[in-house]
Amino acid sequence: MTTMTILTEADLRRLVPLDVDAVACVEDAFRALATKPVAMPPILRLDVPEHNGEVDVKTAYVPGLAGFAIKISPGFFDNPKKGLPSVNGLMVYFSAETGVVEAVLLDNGYLTDVRTAAAGAVAARHLSRKDAAVAAILGGGVQARLQLEALALVRPIRAARIWARRADRAAATAEAAAESLGMPVTAVADAAEAVRGADIVVTTTPATSPILKAEWLTPGQHVTAMGSDAEHKNEIDPAIFAKAVYVADSLSQTRRLGELHHAVAAGLIPEAQVFPEIGQVIAGIAGGRAAPDDLTLCDLTGTGVQDTAIATLAVARARAAKAGTPFES
Amino acid sequence: MTTMTILTEADLRRLVPLDVDAVACVEDAFRALATKPVAMPPILRLDVPEHNGEVDVKTAYVPGLAGFAIKISPGFFDNPKKGLPSVNGLMVYFSAETGVVEAVLLDNGYLTDVRTAAAGAVAARHLSRKDAAVAAILGGGVQARLQLEALALVRPIRAARIWARRADRAAATAEAAAESLGMPVTAVADAAEAVRGADIVVTTTPATSPILKAEWLTPGQHVTAMGSDAEHKNEIDPAIFAKAVYVADSLSQTRRLGELHHAVAAGLIPEAQVFPEIGQVIAGIAGGRAAPDDLTLCDLTGTGVQDTAIATLAVARARAAKAGTPFES
Repeated sequence: MTTMTILTEADLRRLVPLDVDAVACVEDAFRALATKPVAMPPILRLDVPEHNGEVDVKTAYVPGLAGFAIKISPGFFDNPKKGLPSVNGLMVYFSAETGVVEAVLLDNGYLTDVRTAAAGAVAARHLSRKDAAVAAILGGGVQARLQLEALALVRPIRAARIWARRADRAAATAEAAAESLGMPVTAVADAAEAVRGADIVVTTTPATSPILKAEWLTPGQHVTAMGSDAEHKNEIDPAIFAKAVYVADSLSQTRRLGELHHAVAAGLIPEAQVFPEIGQVIAGIAGGRAAPDDLTLCDLTGTGVQDTAIATLAVARARAAKAGTPFES
Repeated sequence: MTTMTILTEADLRRLVPLDVDAVACVEDAFRALATKPVAMPPILRLDVPEHNGEVDVKTAYVPGLAGFAIKISPGFFDNPKKGLPSVNGLMVYFSAETGVVEAVLLDNGYLTDVRTAAAGAVAARHLSRKDAAVAAILGGGVQARLQLEALALVRPIRAARIWARRADRAAATAEAAAESLGMPVTAVADAAEAVRGADIVVTTTPATSPILKAEWLTPGQHVTAMGSDAEHKNEIDPAIFAKAVYVADSLSQTRRLGELHHAVAAGLIPEAQVFPEIGQVIAGIAGGRAAPDDLTLCDLTGTGVQDTAIATLAVARARAAKAGTPFES
């Protein structure tokens, strides 16, 4: 008989907002990935083709942390037609000492949203210019707004532009972000216009062919591409690799799933070429931006170490707040 | 907001006993694996070396089933020193149409025990002689008793012998099985003696070097090896391959994890050699036992399709019985 705690999405939204602590927790996770013998197995992927569904399972064990999470993320892309969100899921948190289930985090994907946005902040903190003030967001989903909010936690952002394939979503996201951040956020009809003069560009779409062209980019900008987490997704023109300093979240993942693998497939990058990972940049064992005029590109596919980190934070906060429902089995 | 059902180990023990329905459900799962476009990704494996722990995640999607399970099985082998069981875990059951979580099965590994024992029954039903009456079980853990109970569901077993490395565990298992099955079950000190004259031999240990010798086996016997579910585990003398009809639960798994891979490593079997899977034998699209004098060997590593099958049965029974605790998140 073990006693675990069940946390609902409402509990977790209250306990783990997107804030500097969430960013620090994800930054620590990436640092650990570069400096400790972290175990992070390849993502388990299950396809449910009849219903246009896919499920990713991610996990990582970080030596020194009291627990580890296993995250299950179903994405079923016919759901919106049924009035349901595409993305769902939960995390299960285990004791790293005994493997006993300590918490079930019924977050419906919320913690993934937070840790993904936090990774954008970490990338910006370590790769963008310190004075970065203007952001361009490509995409109009939940991550569009969260990535912008995350940037504002680490850089003196004072204005932003949002472009999305669907103008109505760009407008709605711009309006919501302007209100939550108290700054001018403009929806623009042309992606090139959004990017022009921006200090940081974040792509947040499920695009399967590039939405960000190499010729739009100018020295000094930083790009975070966070949309591609599967083989067929591709937001970034592979020609960008010729002019940018490239940093991966996990090189083994970006070689398979991220923007890097499209550049390799296009013959622009040798398959075995080694690039720094963001954790190495954080730990100071690999270079990132060397000069204000560098163009930097961070390729985020989403890692199990982020999931273990955010779940660990959530469980610690739940314990401190005595939140959640205890359950015996 | 979705409503799911949380089922405890006590609920699941009541709802899903090891019975002919459990055996039929696992048999159907193996048949589906051979005849339908089942998606069964490679097992995700996380190691926690500091605490002698490992976690396996298994899943499968079977077209036509309303849901699929993702099973998380931690095994932490220092736990007994702490007064805890080594094996734990849970299953999460999702709608195959929407990917929404429909049930969390906090079974602490119970459903794995049932579906694993049921697979032993399926192997015996399709590979052992119909008149098989004497069983030998090597091992003294939970599966030793369950495998024997499972055999008794499908064959006219009238006596059994149990050998285990630890004599006290063999004795305790023999006593418990004799009582539950109402037949003579004898603990024996010598594994060769247990095997001599048995119609069915089941190996149920975490052995890392063979405990069943080829020279002990005689024509007409059936062997199920269910202990090896990881690279380093090995219960069966690879020389058995020279005299046995070999059947895998999943050939892609037994080539990596099961007894087969030790025979390949020993140079006794070409790496690319194709063997039948139990689902193909069930479906009649591959042969198994062709004659009463055949020696048959079934290599069980444990498959995600069994997990999805047993979870589907559990959820259906829970709904019918209105069992479990509804939970909203």
